[in-house]
Amino acid sequence: METRVEPRLLKGFRDFLPEEAARRSAMLATIVRAFESCGFSPLSTPAIEYADILLGKYGDEGDKLLYRFQDNGGRDVALRYDLTVPLARVMAQYRDLPKPFRRYQVGTVWRAEKPAHGRFREFTQCDADIVGTSSPLADADCIAAVAMALKGLGVERFKVRVGHRAVLNGVLAAAGVTDPAAQVETLRAIDKIDKIGEAAVLDLLSELPGVGREAGGRVLAALKGDAAPAGDGAGDGAAEAAAGRAHLDAVMAAVRAMGCGDVAAVDLTIARGLDYYTGTVFETTLLDLPGIGSVASGGRYDGLLTMFGVPAIPAVGISIGVDRLLAALGELNQLPAAHAGPAAVVCILGQAGMEKGLALLAAIRAAGVAAEAAPDPDARLKKQMEHAVRRGARFAVLVGEAEVASGTAAVKDLAGGTQESIELGRVPGFLAGRARG
Amino acid sequence: METRVEPRLLKGFRDFLPEEAARRSAMLATIVRAFESCGFSPLSTPAIEYADILLGKYGDEGDKLLYRFQDNGGRDVALRYDLTVPLARVMAQYRDLPKPFRRYQVGTVWRAEKPAHGRFREFTQCDADIVGTSSPLADADCIAAVAMALKGLGVERFKVRVGHRAVLNGVLAAAGVTDPAAQVETLRAIDKIDKIGEAAVLDLLSELPGVGREAGGRVLAALKGDAAPAGDGAGDGAAEAAAGRAHLDAVMAAVRAMGCGDVAAVDLTIARGLDYYTGTVFETTLLDLPGIGSVASGGRYDGLLTMFGVPAIPAVGISIGVDRLLAALGELNQLPAAHAGPAAVVCILGQAGMEKGLALLAAIRAAGVAAEAAPDPDARLKKQMEHAVRRGARFAVLVGEAEVASGTAAVKDLAGGTQESIELGRVPGFLAGRARG
Repeated sequence: METRVEPRLLKGFRDFLPEEAARRSAMLATIVRAFESCGFSPLSTPAIEYADILLGKYGDEGDKLLYRFQDNGGRDVALRYDLTVPLARVMAQYRDLPKPFRRYQVGTVWRAEKPAHGRFREFTQCDADIVGTSSPLADADCIAAVAMALKGLGVERFKVRVGHRAVLNGVLAAAGVTDPAAQVETLRAIDKIDKIGEAAVLDLLSELPGVGREAGGRVLAALKGDAAPAGDGAGDGAAEAAAGRAHLDAVMAAVRAMGCGDVAAVDLTIARGLDYYTGTVFETTLLDLPGIGSVASGGRYDGLLTMFGVPAIPAVGISIGVDRLLAALGELNQLPAAHAGPAAVVCILGQAGMEKGLALLAAIRAAGVAAEAAPDPDARLKKQMEHAVRRGARFAVLVGEAEVASGTAAVKDLAGGTQESIELGRVPGFLAGRARG
Repeated sequence: METRVEPRLLKGFRDFLPEEAARRSAMLATIVRAFESCGFSPLSTPAIEYADILLGKYGDEGDKLLYRFQDNGGRDVALRYDLTVPLARVMAQYRDLPKPFRRYQVGTVWRAEKPAHGRFREFTQCDADIVGTSSPLADADCIAAVAMALKGLGVERFKVRVGHRAVLNGVLAAAGVTDPAAQVETLRAIDKIDKIGEAAVLDLLSELPGVGREAGGRVLAALKGDAAPAGDGAGDGAAEAAAGRAHLDAVMAAVRAMGCGDVAAVDLTIARGLDYYTGTVFETTLLDLPGIGSVASGGRYDGLLTMFGVPAIPAVGISIGVDRLLAALGELNQLPAAHAGPAAVVCILGQAGMEKGLALLAAIRAAGVAAEAAPDPDARLKKQMEHAVRRGARFAVLVGEAEVASGTAAVKDLAGGTQESIELGRVPGFLAGRARG
C-alpha cells in the first residue's frame, strides 16, 4: 500500500464526470424508451467472450483490433467488438428462444484502434435487432425505432439512407459490370461519393479493368434517385436483384405508412464494409453535420448464425453510435438537458436546526426531489449558500433556530432570488411542484 | 467465415435474456432514482485501467483475482475489480473537482474467482460515495441512500449494521487485548460470529496467545448491544476510540433524524476485510435471508487517495451487490415487476389493413405504449393472436378490411377476454390509459 502511482487513463479511454455522465444517461434513456416503445426487449451479454466466438466475424482488420488475451485459466478470450456477434451467439446457443426475437442492447465495446478525434478504444453501442423473420416490416421497424429515438432527442433534420446489396449488384450487372472483382472495386469507388464527389468517382471507375468510363457512367446514372433499375432479367443475380428490389420497395412502403417517409430514402450508393450484411443496409446522416458520418447503421445479415453451426436465420438490425451522436448533439447545441446535482440543498444552521433539518431533507427526497444537506452545519449561512450555488441547486432550504421555533423553513429560489417562509410539512410538496414546473 | 464454432459462454459469465434483463433494469432504475434523490451524481470510468492503478489495493488475494493482461501496445492493463479504486483515481487525477464530491456509479466489475452458486466472474456493482468531508452526515447519507433504494424495491425487513474500526480497537484494548497481532486475530475470530456462533468464537479466542478465555469473554460482552465502552482513556488508541465513538454516535443520530432509525443499528462485530477501511463500516442484512450475507457494504476509507500521491482526503461510501440482491428478491418473491415484451400487438389482416395498421402502430408507439406488429400480415388471425399471447402482450389490436372500411380497430383485452371496436384515432389514447391503469 505504499507505492505511489501516477493517476492516469489509458489513451482512447474516458472518464465521464457528472455533468457529461448525466447527459449520456439522459440520452440513453431516450433511446431505450424509443426502442422499448417499438417492441424491442433488453438483452445483456458478457463483456468477455471466448476468442473464437468473435474471430473471423469482422475481417482480418477487425481480428487485429480485438482486445484478446489469456485469462487466469489460460483460456483464449477477447472483449466484445460489437453487440451483433454476441447476439448471434445467443441465438445459436438458446435455440428455443421464440422468434421473431426482438432485442435491444446498450453496451460497451472495445476496439484497439489508433485513438483520434472522436475515435475511442472503449465506446458505447445501442443496438436494435429482429432475428427470425425476413419480413420487410422488420427492416422498417429498425428504421422506425431509430427515427423515434432521434426525434425523441430533438433531432428533426436527419435521413436514414437505405441500400440493398443485391439491388446494387443488379445495377452493376445491368450497366455491364459483370466481373466479380470489378464489381467489388466499383462498390469501393462508389463508397467514396460522399467524400470525393461523383466526378472523381467516375474518374476512378474509368481506370478500373472491367468497368471503364462508359459502364461507370451508366452505373452512376442508374444509382441516382429511387428508380434504379433492378437489371433486365438476364444473367447471374438478376433474380436476386428483382427480389431485393421487391423487398426494398416493401420496406419503404412500410416506413412511409409508419410516418417516417420524410426521414428515410433509398440510396443504393451505400455499400457498408462489414462482410456479414446480405440485404438491406442502413446509414443515418445528420443533415446539418453530413461530415461526421453515419450515426446509426445496420442492415440484414441473414448468414451470421451459420458460423455457429446453425441453419441460416434471417436477421436485421441497426446500431446507434452513442458517442458520435452525443458529440454531434453538442455541435448542434442540442445536448439533452440534464442536471447532475441536487435540486435543493438544505442548509442546517447549527445543532438547533439539525433534527428538523434532517427530517425535512428525508421528506424532500421522499417527494422525489433530489436533495442534500450542506456538508457543514456549523458553517456560516453564507458558506452554506455558496455550496448550494456551486452544486447548481435551484433551491436553498434554510432551517435554523428561528425556523425550528416557528415550524417553518426559509425557501430561497436561487434562480429567481425570491425567498419565502413555508411551513415544514408543506416544503416537500412545494419543491416537488416547482421542480416539475 | 467457414469455421464452425460452438456457441458457448465462459464459466462465471452470464447472458441475461429479456425477462431477466428487464427485471435487472427495473431494479437498477429504482436504485439510481434513490441515489439521485439523495444528491448523488453519476460518474462513469473505463472498464480497463493501467494495472498499477489497481494493484495492491485489494490485498495479495485481490491482486491474483485481477483480469490482467498486456494490450496490443504492450501496456500492462487490468479490468476493474470494483468501482472504489477507480473513484480514488478520478479524485487524484482531477484535483479541482469541487468537494464534497458525491457520486454514484453503476458498473460491471470482473474478478477471476472460482465460480460458485451466486459467485460470478463478471457482476454489477452500484456504489454511492462522498469524498472530501469527514462529516458524519456523509456516513449517514450513504445509509439513507441504501435504505431508500431497498424500500423503493419493496424490501422493508432489512438492517444496515454500522461498525467502527477505532471503536472496536478501543473495546479490545479495554478488554485487555493490547498486542496488535492478537487484535488482528481477535477481529478475524469475531468476524465468524454470524457463521459459527458466539460460543465457538469464545473457544477460538481462548486458544489465542495474548487473548485467552477471560479477555475473550470481556470482548464478547463488550460487543453486545450499542453501549460498548470506548476504552478507559488509557493506552494507545484510546483517543482514536473516543473520537470514533463520537463520530459513530453522530452518524446514528443523523440516521434517526432522517427516519432510518428502524433499519440501522450499531454492530461493532462487523470487521470488514478490505484493508482500506479506516472508520465506520457498513453491512446490510436482509432479515428474512440472513444467510446470504451482506447486500450493501461499505465504510470510511480516508487513506485511499494517498496511494496516488495525494494528501489524505476523507471519503465514505456504500456499494449494493446487485446480483446478490436480485437473487434475494427472487427468493423472497419480491422481484420487480417488469415486462420485457410489448403491451400491444397490432394484427394486420392482409394487405387491406397494411397502411392503416402501420399508421395505427406508429400512433400507439408515439403515445408511449410499447407495441409491435405481428410479423406476418398474410398469416391467419389465429396465428397472429398466438404471437400476441406468446409475447405477453395485454392487447391485440386487429386491423383488417372491415376495420379499414369502418375506420375502427378491434381491440381485444387478452387478460380480460373482452373485445371492443374503437375508432382508429382513439385507440392510442385508450391503450395508454389502460397501460397506466
